[in-house]
Amino acid sequence: MALSTQPYKGARDFYPEDKRLQKYMFNTIRRTVEKFGYEEYDAPVLEPVELYLAKTGEEIVNEQTYAFEDRGGRKVALRPEMTPTVSRLVAAKRQELAYPLRLFNIGGRWRYERPQRGRYREFYQADVDIFGIEGVAAEHEIIQVADHMLRAFGATREMYTIRLNSRKLMDYVLHDFLGCNEVQAQSIAKLIDRIHKIEHAEFLVQADALFSPSQRDAGAVGKLLHVLNAKKPELLPDEVRSQVSFKEILNVMQLLQASGVTNLRFDPTIVRGFDYYTGIVFEVFDTDTENNRSMFGGGRYDGLVGLFGVEPVPTVGFAMGDVTLANFLESHELIPELQPEVDVYAIFVGNVWDQAQKVVELMRSEGLNVACDLTDRKLDKQIKTADKKGIHYVVIIGQKEIDDGRFVLKHLGTGAEERHSAARIASIVKDYRAKHLPHSISPTDDDLDIEEV
Amino acid sequence: MALSTQPYKGARDFYPEDKRLQKYMFNTIRRTVEKFGYEEYDAPVLEPVELYLAKTGEEIVNEQTYAFEDRGGRKVALRPEMTPTVSRLVAAKRQELAYPLRLFNIGGRWRYERPQRGRYREFYQADVDIFGIEGVAAEHEIIQVADHMLRAFGATREMYTIRLNSRKLMDYVLHDFLGCNEVQAQSIAKLIDRIHKIEHAEFLVQADALFSPSQRDAGAVGKLLHVLNAKKPELLPDEVRSQVSFKEILNVMQLLQASGVTNLRFDPTIVRGFDYYTGIVFEVFDTDTENNRSMFGGGRYDGLVGLFGVEPVPTVGFAMGDVTLANFLESHELIPELQPEVDVYAIFVGNVWDQAQKVVELMRSEGLNVACDLTDRKLDKQIKTADKKGIHYVVIIGQKEIDDGRFVLKHLGTGAEERHSAARIASIVKDYRAKHLPHSISPTDDDLDIEEV
Repeated sequence: MALSTQPYKGARDFYPEDKRLQKYMFNTIRRTVEKFGYEEYDAPVLEPVELYLAKTGEEIVNEQTYAFEDRGGRKVALRPEMTPTVSRLVAAKRQELAYPLRLFNIGGRWRYERPQRGRYREFYQADVDIFGIEGVAAEHEIIQVADHMLRAFGATREMYTIRLNSRKLMDYVLHDFLGCNEVQAQSIAKLIDRIHKIEHAEFLVQADALFSPSQRDAGAVGKLLHVLNAKKPELLPDEVRSQVSFKEILNVMQLLQASGVTNLRFDPTIVRGFDYYTGIVFEVFDTDTENNRSMFGGGRYDGLVGLFGVEPVPTVGFAMGDVTLANFLESHELIPELQPEVDVYAIFVGNVWDQAQKVVELMRSEGLNVACDLTDRKLDKQIKTADKKGIHYVVIIGQKEIDDGRFVLKHLGTGAEERHSAARIASIVKDYRAKHLPHSISPTDDDLDIEEV
Repeated sequence: MALSTQPYKGARDFYPEDKRLQKYMFNTIRRTVEKFGYEEYDAPVLEPVELYLAKTGEEIVNEQTYAFEDRGGRKVALRPEMTPTVSRLVAAKRQELAYPLRLFNIGGRWRYERPQRGRYREFYQADVDIFGIEGVAAEHEIIQVADHMLRAFGATREMYTIRLNSRKLMDYVLHDFLGCNEVQAQSIAKLIDRIHKIEHAEFLVQADALFSPSQRDAGAVGKLLHVLNAKKPELLPDEVRSQVSFKEILNVMQLLQASGVTNLRFDPTIVRGFDYYTGIVFEVFDTDTENNRSMFGGGRYDGLVGLFGVEPVPTVGFAMGDVTLANFLESHELIPELQPEVDVYAIFVGNVWDQAQKVVELMRSEGLNVACDLTDRKLDKQIKTADKKGIHYVVIIGQKEIDDGRFVLKHLGTGAEERHSAARIASIVKDYRAKHLPHSISPTDDDLDIEEV
C-alpha cells in the first residue's frame, strides 16, 4: 500500500511559497526585537516533563503535552511553551549573565489540542523576554516591543488594542477585597478568564456558586462586578486603588502613552492562563469585528528562574503565535506579495553547457540567484516552467549569444526582450529586485523602518 | 527539590553566542544554495513511523527513532532525517510542481544514539535536493553546491576531498560480477561501509565468510578487492567498465573537473547507509589528519517519491549536519569572530527618561540596534555590563547632552569618547559595523562571494 502524503494531523507542510511568508513574518519579528537589543537563543525541543509540572497551566500539562518515555526511560515532552525553558537557561548561568538580559526565540511548540482555524498541534511562537529589571521600565519596554512588532507589519493602532491588568492587583481583589481562599481564588480566576466566552447570566450564576454564604452576604458578586466593569483604573473601588499594584498599572499606562501607544486600555478581565505570572499582564486584541479576540499576551513572572534553586530574577515577557499573527495580517490585508528568491531562470540553447556555465557563475558572483533548467526541452516549455515558478526573468544562452558576449534577458511580466552582458544583466535584475521588495530573505533596515513617534 | 538546569541528554542549549555561530552557518548555507536557485521548505517534526520503515536504514528505525504513540493512538516519530519527508511533499503535489524542482531545508533531526563528540541526539541538518532531472547534470550541480558551500565558509579544496561512487555500479559488482544473492549483497555492502573502521585482515576474514564455496573458488574475494582497490575508475576490471553506470561516473567526474572541482576522487568503498540510493553516491571527507573522516554525503534516489503511489521523480540530494560542519570549521580555523547584534548600549544619566527615549528611537529608526540599560546603577557598572555583553559602543545621555543635542559615544575597545548628534552616531556605528563583519544576521552578497573558477 502506498504511503500517505498527508502531513501529521494538526501540523503543516511549508512549500516554498508558505515558507516565504513564514520567513517574512519571522524576519520582521527578528528585525524589530533586535532594534531593542534582544538576542536570539535556542534550546532543545525535548524537555523533561517535570519542567512543566510546576507552573505551566494544568490543562496544558495533563491534556495537551506530547509526553513520552525515551529509550533510556526518561520522561520527556515536546515543549508546549518556551517560558520554562528560557528560565532554565537563565538559571543555569545565573551568575555569568549580564543584566538586563534580553532574549528572544522563534521556534516550534507542540500541544495536543483539537485542530481548528487558528490552532494547530504544531505551531510556532516568538518568545521575547527581559530579565533583571524589577521596575515597570521592563513592562514599558516589552509592551512597546509588542506594539512595534505589529506596526512593523504595517498595522495601524486602529487594528488592535492592548489591554492591561495586574495579577498582583487581582490577587488582592480575590483574597483581600473579596475574602476568597486559595481554591476559590483559582476557580474565580479561571472563570474570569472565560468571561468573554460565556453568557453574562451564566457568568453570574457560576460566580455566585463559587462564593460562600457569608461572602455572598457581604455582596461578593457585586464587588467582583464593580472590579470587572471598571473600564478605567480610576473606576476601581477605593480600597483596590490604594494598592501598590494599582500604581504600577497607572505608571505603565503613563509611560506607554508618552511613547505614543495610544491604543492601550485597562481591562480587569485579563488574567492569563499560566500560573507563573506575578505582576502586570497584558493581551493584544484584534479589533477586526469578525476576529475581535485575544491574539497574544504576556506579563511579569518573577518566580520562574528561582524554581531552579538559584536566586530569582525579575522577568517580563510575551509570546506571539505564528498562526494568530498570519490570520491578523490576512484579515487586515497586510500580507505583501512576496517575491521568489530565484532572480533568473537560465535556459541553454544547443550544446553550450561548458561556456554557459561560466556565464551563470558570473551572474551568481554578481549576487544573483540563478536556477538553470538543465533539461533539453523546447524553449517555450522551459520559459513556461520559469513562469510557473513565479520567476520574473529568463536569460537565454545559445552559441550566438556566447560569441556575442550578450545574452537575451526576457522579463516574463511584460514579455520584453533585451540583449546585455552578464554584468549588465546582474545590475538590471538587482535594481528590479530592490524595487520589488519585500523579499522574504533579507529585509533591510529600510523595509522595516516604521514611522517613529 | 529544585528543577535541573541541564538540557536534555544529547541536546544543546544555544545561548546568544552559540546561536550566533549557528545563524552564521545556516545563513551561509542559505545564501549558497539560493545562488543555485534552491528554495526553502519546511515540514512537521512529527511524522508517521511508517514513513521510515520502507527505506531508511534498519538501524535508525529500530534502534534510534524517537517513536511514540500520540494521545489519539497514532504512531509517530520525531524525524530522524528529512529525505522521506521531502519525498512526501513532492509526491503530494506531483502534478502541480514545476520541474526541475530545487528544495532545501535546514532544521532539527532526532536520533537516539550514544552522545559523543560530533554526535548529538538532537542535531540540525541542511538537506538540499533537486527533483526531476534524470541525467548526470543533477549530480553535477548537487556536488557543485556541496563544494561551493564549504568554500563559502572559506575552506580551500586542500581541506576536503569529494569521493564518488555509484550504487548501480556496486549492484552490478555484487550481483553480476561476484554472483551474490540479495542477502549476500546487502551483507557485503554493509561490510564495505565499515571498511575504514576495521582492520584489513578482519575485513578479509569477514568478506570471505560471506561468500559461498563456489564463489570463493571463483576468486570472489580477490575480485572484490580488485574493485575496492581501484583508485581510479580506469583501474576497475574490464567487465565492470563496460557498464552504463561506469560511464555515468566518468561523466560526472569530467563535468565537475571542468567546473574546477579538483579535489574529486573515485572511491569504490563509498556505499552510504540509507537503502534508498539508486545511482551516483558521494561523500565529502575532511583531509585534516586528525579528523580524516566522512563529513556528509548524498546521491541519487529515484525511487522514494514513487512510494507514495505517484509516478516516480528522479532525485539527487545531500544532507550536511551542523555538528560535523562546526567541527570542520573549528579544526581548520574557519570560524570568524562574530559580532553581537546589539550595536549600541544606551545609558541614561539622571532623570532624562522621556527625552532620552526620543534619542534612542531616532538611532533605531536610522538602523541601529540599541539596548537600554534601564537600571539606575552607577555609570561604570552600566559600562561594564555593555562590555560583558561584547557590545562595542556605549552612548551616554544626560541632561547636558540632551540640551546640547550631542551625546557621548564611547568605543569600549579603544576607550575613545566623542560627542555627536544621534544621526551622526548612527552613521559612525553603521560604518563600523560594516567593517567588522561577519555579522551573523544578514550576510550580504559581498561577504559570501567566493572566487569563481
